[in-house]
Amino acid sequence: MNYKKLGKILGKIMILEGILMIAPLAVSLIYKESRLHILAFLIPILLVTSIGFLLQIPKPERNTLYQKEGFALTAMVWIVMTLFGAIPFVINGDIPNYIDACFEIMSGFTTTGSSIIPDITTVAHSTLFWRSFSHWIGGMGILVFVLIFIPESNDGSSMHLLRAESPGPQVGKIVSKMKMTTRILYLIYLGMTVLEVIILMFDKPIPGYENDQFFFSLLATFGCAGTGGFGFIPGSMELFHPFSQYVMSIFLILFGCNFSLYYLLLIGKIKDVFRSEEFRSYFMIIVAAVGFVFLSLVGKFETFPQIYTTEEAFRHSLFQISSLMTTAGYTTTDYDVWPMLAKTTLVVVMFIGAMAGSTAGGIKVSRIVMAMKGAYINVRKLINPHYVPKAKFEGKTLEQKTINDVFAFITLYFFIFLAAIFLLSFDSVNGQIVTIVSDAGNYEVKHGFFSNFSAALTCISNVGPAFEAVGPYSNFAGYNDFSIIVLTLTMMLGRLEILPVLILFNKRTWKKI
Amino acid sequence: MNYKKLGKILGKIMILEGILMIAPLAVSLIYKESRLHILAFLIPILLVTSIGFLLQIPKPERNTLYQKEGFALTAMVWIVMTLFGAIPFVINGDIPNYIDACFEIMSGFTTTGSSIIPDITTVAHSTLFWRSFSHWIGGMGILVFVLIFIPESNDGSSMHLLRAESPGPQVGKIVSKMKMTTRILYLIYLGMTVLEVIILMFDKPIPGYENDQFFFSLLATFGCAGTGGFGFIPGSMELFHPFSQYVMSIFLILFGCNFSLYYLLLIGKIKDVFRSEEFRSYFMIIVAAVGFVFLSLVGKFETFPQIYTTEEAFRHSLFQISSLMTTAGYTTTDYDVWPMLAKTTLVVVMFIGAMAGSTAGGIKVSRIVMAMKGAYINVRKLINPHYVPKAKFEGKTLEQKTINDVFAFITLYFFIFLAAIFLLSFDSVNGQIVTIVSDAGNYEVKHGFFSNFSAALTCISNVGPAFEAVGPYSNFAGYNDFSIIVLTLTMMLGRLEILPVLILFNKRTWKKI
Repeated sequence: MNYKKLGKILGKIMILEGILMIAPLAVSLIYKESRLHILAFLIPILLVTSIGFLLQIPKPERNTLYQKEGFALTAMVWIVMTLFGAIPFVINGDIPNYIDACFEIMSGFTTTGSSIIPDITTVAHSTLFWRSFSHWIGGMGILVFVLIFIPESNDGSSMHLLRAESPGPQVGKIVSKMKMTTRILYLIYLGMTVLEVIILMFDKPIPGYENDQFFFSLLATFGCAGTGGFGFIPGSMELFHPFSQYVMSIFLILFGCNFSLYYLLLIGKIKDVFRSEEFRSYFMIIVAAVGFVFLSLVGKFETFPQIYTTEEAFRHSLFQISSLMTTAGYTTTDYDVWPMLAKTTLVVVMFIGAMAGSTAGGIKVSRIVMAMKGAYINVRKLINPHYVPKAKFEGKTLEQKTINDVFAFITLYFFIFLAAIFLLSFDSVNGQIVTIVSDAGNYEVKHGFFSNFSAALTCISNVGPAFEAVGPYSNFAGYNDFSIIVLTLTMMLGRLEILPVLILFNKRTWKKI
Repeated sequence: MNYKKLGKILGKIMILEGILMIAPLAVSLIYKESRLHILAFLIPILLVTSIGFLLQIPKPERNTLYQKEGFALTAMVWIVMTLFGAIPFVINGDIPNYIDACFEIMSGFTTTGSSIIPDITTVAHSTLFWRSFSHWIGGMGILVFVLIFIPESNDGSSMHLLRAESPGPQVGKIVSKMKMTTRILYLIYLGMTVLEVIILMFDKPIPGYENDQFFFSLLATFGCAGTGGFGFIPGSMELFHPFSQYVMSIFLILFGCNFSLYYLLLIGKIKDVFRSEEFRSYFMIIVAAVGFVFLSLVGKFETFPQIYTTEEAFRHSLFQISSLMTTAGYTTTDYDVWPMLAKTTLVVVMFIGAMAGSTAGGIKVSRIVMAMKGAYINVRKLINPHYVPKAKFEGKTLEQKTINDVFAFITLYFFIFLAAIFLLSFDSVNGQIVTIVSDAGNYEVKHGFFSNFSAALTCISNVGPAFEAVGPYSNFAGYNDFSIIVLTLTMMLGRLEILPVLILFNKRTWKKI
């Protein structure tokens, strides 16, 4: 283990975190918050940057990183970012319990958006900003961010980092130079973010929040871009006007696309975009899912009280599918009261997630497509033992090794998901009655199996809200500390796609090879 | 496609089914049932044997079967057995809807034990017998049965059949001659069945059913041996005395063991049994699961009303874990009212299932162990790219190919499970209120997500009862025909471990290679 080099990079991350925290500090000053709120950011900024600079002092003997160090580092970065990023919430008192604060900011960085805050109206603007900003930071990967600052090396150590952190099985095939790729991706990310904020500003302000239009447009956009989805006013996006809701739906779908598609667009290869199998599958799943939910909401399957107009039914279908499939988790209505077909469709798209190479979580459409092809190959081989698979994916030969990795990943995903449900079942919150206050009225719901099932799912897929007692109009505050730690780890496993976390916690990683 | 040869074997299966149906016919005569009840078996016996004999007439040009034909045949056998096996229920009126009748007998042959009959007290003895007997037949595999009658060939075609049908990744390693193996396995199966019936006869008769003690001991044993679990009196095994419940728990665990272990016992290699990794894992999971459920029932985690004495809590824990992990599905109490930890533990063991090479369903302990080892190897390879895996399973080197197959299987299992949940969500039963009458009292329960989740799980793992609206004191009668067909296919996919069914429905199977 090259501890000094690891320390150096971790230190740089910490300095970066300190710099990023200046933004919520500025918000705190702009909104003239109390001295405690200003200190809540000032103290961790000083702390984290000091430690960061101290870690720069030791000179590493070796300037490269082994693959295992790259993976372990990736997992550590997220833990370090979380441990320090949680401090402001504890100091300003918005989330007094440190474990809860870690859950909240891990939920931010992993772009999950599950919240532990019972009443969002009681927290400061700086807290709201830091939560949503963490989505934007986490969306493209903290390390990708850092790669811009690390001198490029030819030994591939930065590739190790990127591979460990980036969602989806493919990465960095756009241009050969890693740094160049990173910069282009970031420019696209930044450009789309700015564009969304501008478009949202065209809408009428939300009644009662007239002074906050720019602030809220910014936060809403952070959540869309990072596919995070922290709410910042009661009812998530319920109070936003239909115009904004449609705009967000479209941007969510766009942020759920593989970013290399935008690069292809930029260089004029529009046909290649539409030739992408993953893109076509992604698009078809969205269309089908919106269709199922819409038909379900207009009462085609199960009897369902006509609480929506046709336009509302369509808008909510489009918004919830966009939001849950891209694993953002914003909501415009209480989908927990929806008919079973609609709810089950939401569960299915939460498993699938959006495209690889996007900011989204979940298993990813590309893996689903590859697993299907892999299964087909297995069947064909049994039908004819001499069958030589000629399967292709995105125009390239689909290697058996890739298929095996996909199967292994999905199996682990399923195991971790089951393990999380099991661990949540120890909580004494199970069986308790929770009162929900939503646009569908007030009602009581029991904390049952579906609560834990969907809590585990929403965390491993980095979605945000779940169902039943942890549904869109509820929160995770009912869980005890043990469950919160389980869910925090589950979010991290989901965001880092499992292996880096397993590597970090494997004792072999810390031994000499 | 060697249609004539396929027809010949299918014909033999049909003749066999006709012969097996003589047993319920005899029951019908013994209990002096109405002429309709006698005809209910006589007509299908004549029908199925006539067709069976007709199929023997054409002479196949080739006497061997290709692998694909073996797999397709396996799947077809189960469909044919089901289509004819369902007829008696329709004729005698115990299950008037043919689709429901197919569900019931497929549930029997696949050793699932999910029932569509709303009130079990209304059906005839011959119906009860045929249902439970189908567990016993299906337990060891219909084809294994047939292999005894098929002349042994050296081309491995019988191996293809056995591999397609036998649960678990390993098969037929006991003795080299296939037929010999089959006979030994059957003798063990028969011996254990007789032993259980005898031991159960030692118990006091169930009050109110004094005349039926032998009949019920026999049916109870059929369900244990095949790990099926159809109930035949109200409340499944609730009314049986504790002695019988303990005896059944132990036999269930024994029938969940790989049958080659008994062969090892017979030839005196006792040490090898305890050296088996799968056996040790199986045993440890049972102990841990019983422990969790027991602690949960005595109120260690969630507040739970003290409805059981300590002995009862232990007995129900042991019985339910034995019954659900071996995927039998007998019940002694209403576990649907249990605390979340207990219920979630049951869900987890329903996924796992018992040992490969047993009569049980589920993913199988051996696959879980191999998947864990495979995941560990993947992590080790990332830590050290030069790592050469030395993993072993049951004393033999664990090949990467085997691990890949296991991952592929679990992924497909998960996909089919999700797909089944999704298809069930179309049913208009969703959201309806069901009244449950159980030993825990009368209460109302909504047909919710957990109902569909557990219905899909109980069918793919061939367990039997589920939770919530399809819990142990309810039944599957609420589902519409479409859902029943989905669940019937899910049972078949689970019992045949997916691939044979996919091969049957692949158009390439029916083309010339």
